[in-house]
Amino acid sequence: MVQYTDIGDVSSAEVERMRAVYEPLAAAVRELIDATIRTEVDADTVGEVTAEIAAATARLRSRQCDGPFGVRSTTGGDRMAWGNPVIGIRNPIAPPLTIQRNDDGGVFTDFHLGAAYEGPPGHVHGGVSALVLDHVLGEVAANEETPRFTGTITLRYLRPTRLGELHAEARITRTDGFKAYAAGHLADEDGITVEAEGIFIQPKWARG
Amino acid sequence: MVQYTDIGDVSSAEVERMRAVYEPLAAAVRELIDATIRTEVDADTVGEVTAEIAAATARLRSRQCDGPFGVRSTTGGDRMAWGNPVIGIRNPIAPPLTIQRNDDGGVFTDFHLGAAYEGPPGHVHGGVSALVLDHVLGEVAANEETPRFTGTITLRYLRPTRLGELHAEARITRTDGFKAYAAGHLADEDGITVEAEGIFIQPKWARG
Repeated sequence: MVQYTDIGDVSSAEVERMRAVYEPLAAAVRELIDATIRTEVDADTVGEVTAEIAAATARLRSRQCDGPFGVRSTTGGDRMAWGNPVIGIRNPIAPPLTIQRNDDGGVFTDFHLGAAYEGPPGHVHGGVSALVLDHVLGEVAANEETPRFTGTITLRYLRPTRLGELHAEARITRTDGFKAYAAGHLADEDGITVEAEGIFIQPKWARG
Repeated sequence: MVQYTDIGDVSSAEVERMRAVYEPLAAAVRELIDATIRTEVDADTVGEVTAEIAAATARLRSRQCDGPFGVRSTTGGDRMAWGNPVIGIRNPIAPPLTIQRNDDGGVFTDFHLGAAYEGPPGHVHGGVSALVLDHVLGEVAANEETPRFTGTITLRYLRPTRLGELHAEARITRTDGFKAYAAGHLADEDGITVEAEGIFIQPKWARG
């Protein structure tokens, strides 16, 4: 069972205050991830930095939530998917993507992927392209009134995707009862690299 | 063009020495990622930790490789995909998976996914399942003699995958010229959650 967390009557101003506290921490850890992969400093320095990081982690863990972050919503309608590995502002694994909506109901996002997302040298890992496209198609296929989860997704890789500035977009192609069909693509600076189509299904517990 | 890096006549002992230096750093950053998502310490502490992390990053960046890590090979045959986001021992985004081979040529891996990989509350992000399965199918479909990249992959989600102890496996179902067909699945403690099948293609530049 998938359970969302209602954090009650928390104001939007308080949500923004929390964002301002935690977003810079995750941004700093993202930079650290990149540096961890690329550093060539000597073994002694690596050892010292490793100890510093362990100490920082201990400070953060002195007070933390049990288990994962979850998806938290306020009575006023603010929705905090802050732990999400694609869009989560508190998750250093997330690039993070900012999903934008077109007038026609489609979604798109422009973002940057660096060293942490590399599969074939200089290029995006094929599974990372799948991660991004699953999320972007899911964003267009689902909303707060109608949660839908991935039923099936197919990805076609036209050519390797270069690391750097990227674009992804998706649209609903049709809906049929509890199912929404979505299609989209990933593109690098030279055009489309991966095409995706998926079927997203409203889970039984969310059917009114 | 995808270019692998030949680091020349580096001994296996030296590769092991580098692993011993850098692997604990990435492991420490993985713990920090989890703590970053889950911490509830006050704003002042978060600010101090953020500054400490920025300082640690600066130390690591004082000497680093240009661009991403790439995939490095030694003359002796050691292969270092250490920056890979699924198996890379130097990439804090990677769980990392350790791929094991069966006698029949199939591959499998047992691993743990925590807060950093959460999509629906308490469950693995559907795109993370795709990331893992793309990689595991790719591992069985390709090898050093025959590099193959994902051509098409289809994922069928049977039910949500719980965060925690997971298992993935894949096998080649047939090969046809430059193509290998692979199938596999992801499972949590209650059984199979996601099925995958894919076609992996040898790129033109790697055809003898």
